[in-house]
Amino acid sequence: MDINLKINNTAARTGDMPAEEFKKYGYKLIDWIAEYLTGVQSMPVLSNVKPGDIKNMLPQHPPERSESMENILQDINRVIMPGITHWNHPGFMAYFNSTSSGPGILAELLSAGLNVNGMLWKTSPSSTELEQVTLDWFRQMLKLDKDFWGIIYDTASVSTMHAIAAARENISGSDIRMKGLVGGSEVNRLRLYASEQVHSSIEKGAITLGIGLEGVRKIPVDNEFKMIPSKLEEAIEEDKKNGWLPFCVVATVGTTSTTSIDPVDEIAGICLREKLWLHVDAAHGGIAALVPEMRHILNGVEKADSLVVNPHKWMFTPVDLSIFFTKKPQVLKQAFSLIPEYLKTSVDSEVENYMDYGVQLGRRFRSLKLWFIIRYFGTDGIIERVREHLRIGKLFASWIDEHPMFERLAPVPLSTTCFRAHPAGMDDEETLNTLNERLMDYVNSTGKVFITHTKLSGKFVIRLVVSGLRTEERHVRLAWEIIQQCLAELLRK
Amino acid sequence: MDINLKINNTAARTGDMPAEEFKKYGYKLIDWIAEYLTGVQSMPVLSNVKPGDIKNMLPQHPPERSESMENILQDINRVIMPGITHWNHPGFMAYFNSTSSGPGILAELLSAGLNVNGMLWKTSPSSTELEQVTLDWFRQMLKLDKDFWGIIYDTASVSTMHAIAAARENISGSDIRMKGLVGGSEVNRLRLYASEQVHSSIEKGAITLGIGLEGVRKIPVDNEFKMIPSKLEEAIEEDKKNGWLPFCVVATVGTTSTTSIDPVDEIAGICLREKLWLHVDAAHGGIAALVPEMRHILNGVEKADSLVVNPHKWMFTPVDLSIFFTKKPQVLKQAFSLIPEYLKTSVDSEVENYMDYGVQLGRRFRSLKLWFIIRYFGTDGIIERVREHLRIGKLFASWIDEHPMFERLAPVPLSTTCFRAHPAGMDDEETLNTLNERLMDYVNSTGKVFITHTKLSGKFVIRLVVSGLRTEERHVRLAWEIIQQCLAELLRK
Repeated sequence: MDINLKINNTAARTGDMPAEEFKKYGYKLIDWIAEYLTGVQSMPVLSNVKPGDIKNMLPQHPPERSESMENILQDINRVIMPGITHWNHPGFMAYFNSTSSGPGILAELLSAGLNVNGMLWKTSPSSTELEQVTLDWFRQMLKLDKDFWGIIYDTASVSTMHAIAAARENISGSDIRMKGLVGGSEVNRLRLYASEQVHSSIEKGAITLGIGLEGVRKIPVDNEFKMIPSKLEEAIEEDKKNGWLPFCVVATVGTTSTTSIDPVDEIAGICLREKLWLHVDAAHGGIAALVPEMRHILNGVEKADSLVVNPHKWMFTPVDLSIFFTKKPQVLKQAFSLIPEYLKTSVDSEVENYMDYGVQLGRRFRSLKLWFIIRYFGTDGIIERVREHLRIGKLFASWIDEHPMFERLAPVPLSTTCFRAHPAGMDDEETLNTLNERLMDYVNSTGKVFITHTKLSGKFVIRLVVSGLRTEERHVRLAWEIIQQCLAELLRK
Repeated sequence: MDINLKINNTAARTGDMPAEEFKKYGYKLIDWIAEYLTGVQSMPVLSNVKPGDIKNMLPQHPPERSESMENILQDINRVIMPGITHWNHPGFMAYFNSTSSGPGILAELLSAGLNVNGMLWKTSPSSTELEQVTLDWFRQMLKLDKDFWGIIYDTASVSTMHAIAAARENISGSDIRMKGLVGGSEVNRLRLYASEQVHSSIEKGAITLGIGLEGVRKIPVDNEFKMIPSKLEEAIEEDKKNGWLPFCVVATVGTTSTTSIDPVDEIAGICLREKLWLHVDAAHGGIAALVPEMRHILNGVEKADSLVVNPHKWMFTPVDLSIFFTKKPQVLKQAFSLIPEYLKTSVDSEVENYMDYGVQLGRRFRSLKLWFIIRYFGTDGIIERVREHLRIGKLFASWIDEHPMFERLAPVPLSTTCFRAHPAGMDDEETLNTLNERLMDYVNSTGKVFITHTKLSGKFVIRLVVSGLRTEERHVRLAWEIIQQCLAELLRK
């Protein structure tokens, strides 16, 4: 017996998990996920553990000896699940949602199994070419011109950082790649423009790229939270007079707080005149533009230099998968291409090596997800699902509008409603803010729905987003009932 | 019949893949991967398709109608496989290898199924806390001080970019986050130091961060390709005299061409004296340091400010998973933390929100891979596998040393051998370069082994790396036989 044990241990010390074991636990995990996705709606959407609870269930030291897959899988339910906030839950109506789908999950499984690094064409031609083809499919789905060239990055934050880096590289007469920005008598201080409602990733990009937070000038918005083009023009004029060098504008199609749609076409006109790089951040909203009657939200994009859209937000793609399109891939390449000897191949002049277009050398085989999802749902199926979300989103907004104790605080161009409770006679803003924060927390504590907030002109505003694959009218109807009940209870207290 | 079709189509237009279908194709894919990993050694390791071959097998337009999973999975063999270069193949001895393992693949499957975004503690406490615990396990496995704080990024390129960004933020008296680098009278031009053998990602990081390629000064190496500390000191002195501002040094433990180990301890002494941020790039080599008798390659790391080690290179983890440790997380946070209203939570002061420490907001649940892999193999099992690679790597080097027609061109501190054919009497370097390039291509054309090259002092050098989970002595022995045969045939021609 002791001898057997030793033999087993030795055998376990080289190579991978045996195929039979992989199959056995692979099936178990597939079953577990199928059951999870079917049953997720009856779980509390927001985890209610306390800080440290999960950590306390885990050993402080790594195991020296191999543990069985049986034990490891059991710990998913015991340790991991209590601390999961269920992004897949139909009641997850917070932030911008991201839901996984069957075909997306299976594509990730395949990607992990093949485990290729698509840094070069040669390191897996299928990775590069499937990326090219699926991005061309997606370009057609978005009705974008043929001159939009695409690449998959991990997140919109990284896509946007590359957009700003390309805009920086594109400054004429500069040599920022070689000389950097520091001590540069050659260029004035750079200025990038975006609306007051722009996502924080634009500022993170500016910090990273050495432009600094002061290099981002926020342009005022109108009462629908859209950038005011005349204010953009004024800001550019003023900055030029004061020695700044304007170089880039970010227009947002679907801002994070309210999903407001900046007037891309008008902004594009200004950018053309001023020779500024125009980047369109449609990370969330771009997916709505797949629906033909919604395509207008991207009007003007044909004049933009770059665009980001995230299938991992509203196209049922497991994180991460962000699509970046640009009409000037050569500028991106000029900024980032660096080919050390050990990465040179004999076909470099004939093929696309995606490593040339960004910071990251390692590249997962992400296009498999796009390929599986577009084929499995079909473009019609994707459109129908998004169209249904838009319908339900507007339905919820109409309930808010009709109810005397609630008010809507922003237009609903997509499927996100910004609202608050506003009982008759309660007009002190502080009191209203406190009430609505308590209302949100109370609603979230039911475990049936998860909603988040933002602030608009100092007002605490609740956001409800409909973009989950499993979210149907009945779930939003339930959310609405819970919101009303919670408010009634809070007011009774 | 027509009516049925319509009903089916309508049904397919909302919601996810049904659970039964997910299970059926999930099992099929699990079987496919098990078979693939068992049979991969009999496939040609390097894809031999021509540019465009894969693209030509794919439709030019996306499908409007939903396709069956059956068809989609069939296309894996038909379309995808011919264009796969098999990183999982035991004969993949190119670049720095990355192999997936059973537990790693299953963890990715679970991560895609749960699909949480760990940007905030609240958005899934298990994601944040499992990351904290598994990184602490890994810290113990590497015998690092307790004051090393960790975070998982996607790739070493991104880890290193964050290291340099933290170094930049750490420059005393500067306000780069706010003011940027441009037009800055406050700071001189920044200079970062690394050896001539450093990875290209350091230069990409410098471009991205606005430091510029000229901001990277390459320090000469000795005849073992290690940075010469006295040359580093001289360079710093010279730069200071000429108005540069030295701010960071990158030491490499396992350079890409030869796996040379920079003398971290000596370099750390210089950094302490000069108050420079020391980043240690051990993306590949750090895994070797898990083996107790090899831990010395990290000597001096306790004086470093940051360190990167990639489990997705040599620890059987599917891409992507790069671990970044730093003793100064507060500097990283100071550089990158930006908390818009819509991401504020009531527990922010009590918990770690990993989004505060980098560019990326979206964060996959990557720590599941570490958790599964460390538990399934055990720390002993991981050590044994890496130790075996080190043994085989040195065995191969000994064969090169003993053979009169080959020569070794660099020491073998880890498991990578740099060598070339050098037949007696053939001493013209051009001729030798051509011969060795042809030899490499010829070996790769057999489909049994995939090796790549680098250049050392103008010489074309073949690299053979032993770090794949499925690579055993017999595979390296076979590679060696093929190399000798191919050389003999080339010389006969």
